[in-house]
Amino acid sequence: MNTHEDYMRLALRQAELAARQGEVPVGAVLVVSGRLFAAHNTPIATHDPSAHAEMRAIRAACAALGNYRLNGATLYVTLEPCCMCAGAIIHARIGHLVYGARDPKTGAVASLYQLLSDRRLNHRPTITEGVLADSCGAVLKAFFRQRRRTTNGDAQA
Amino acid sequence: MNTHEDYMRLALRQAELAARQGEVPVGAVLVVSGRLFAAHNTPIATHDPSAHAEMRAIRAACAALGNYRLNGATLYVTLEPCCMCAGAIIHARIGHLVYGARDPKTGAVASLYQLLSDRRLNHRPTITEGVLADSCGAVLKAFFRQRRRTTNGDAQA
Repeated sequence: MNTHEDYMRLALRQAELAARQGEVPVGAVLVVSGRLFAAHNTPIATHDPSAHAEMRAIRAACAALGNYRLNGATLYVTLEPCCMCAGAIIHARIGHLVYGARDPKTGAVASLYQLLSDRRLNHRPTITEGVLADSCGAVLKAFFRQRRRTTNGDAQA
Repeated sequence: MNTHEDYMRLALRQAELAARQGEVPVGAVLVVSGRLFAAHNTPIATHDPSAHAEMRAIRAACAALGNYRLNGATLYVTLEPCCMCAGAIIHARIGHLVYGARDPKTGAVASLYQLLSDRRLNHRPTITEGVLADSCGAVLKAFFRQRRRTTNGDAQA
């Protein structure tokens, strides 16, 4: 039986894949109807500001299952979803959201907003936070540390 | 010189197109770099919960221009954007949002949330609301009135 940590480790691998491609390292894994859909952040490479890991996993699962609703799905993501992704989670009727690190700058599940707990909206998934939070945060910190170093290097060149 | 009303009329035609396809009638027109991208709501037909009119217009423009940012773009949409679409508007750096009717149930620009005026987030577009609001609202009301009638008919059948 796979645990939350097992799936989050797969999401972390997706985040690392994003980092190697110069994208902000966030990864997601969506489990629904016994199938698994993995995705990473690709806005720059795909010229698509909506191509966050969560959105890509949701869209891939919906396309594969031929349904715009994913009742009973569990979505694992390394970082707290933003407003856009929280909105898509509601539209897709994701049953359970499991995330790693909080995002104090744009997080819309706990940090800036609590969109997924809002009783005025028409769906509220179960939420589990903090799964492998340190590892999920570390991959982001390392990425931005490296990028600042590179940017400083360029500025000096 | 085209006015906001001219562009909103085009967005309304997109909304009517959605209604004819059995989708919630919302339409959008995005104007950027002298080009125009029109789209309507298609979540059901495309098995994509993120396929709101705004999202589709943004994605189409970004794909055509080869850029995940649309600085200087104006987005016209018949209905107040939801959390998901408001988030995408921020990510895409849309310069000006013009919308028609308010959405008291899921609107995230004025009704439930004011995401696009939040100084903690990293982009705040200019906002113009209420352009052809009555017509934009009327197409939605007519659609849901018709759908309730059909649903009642099915229930009795």
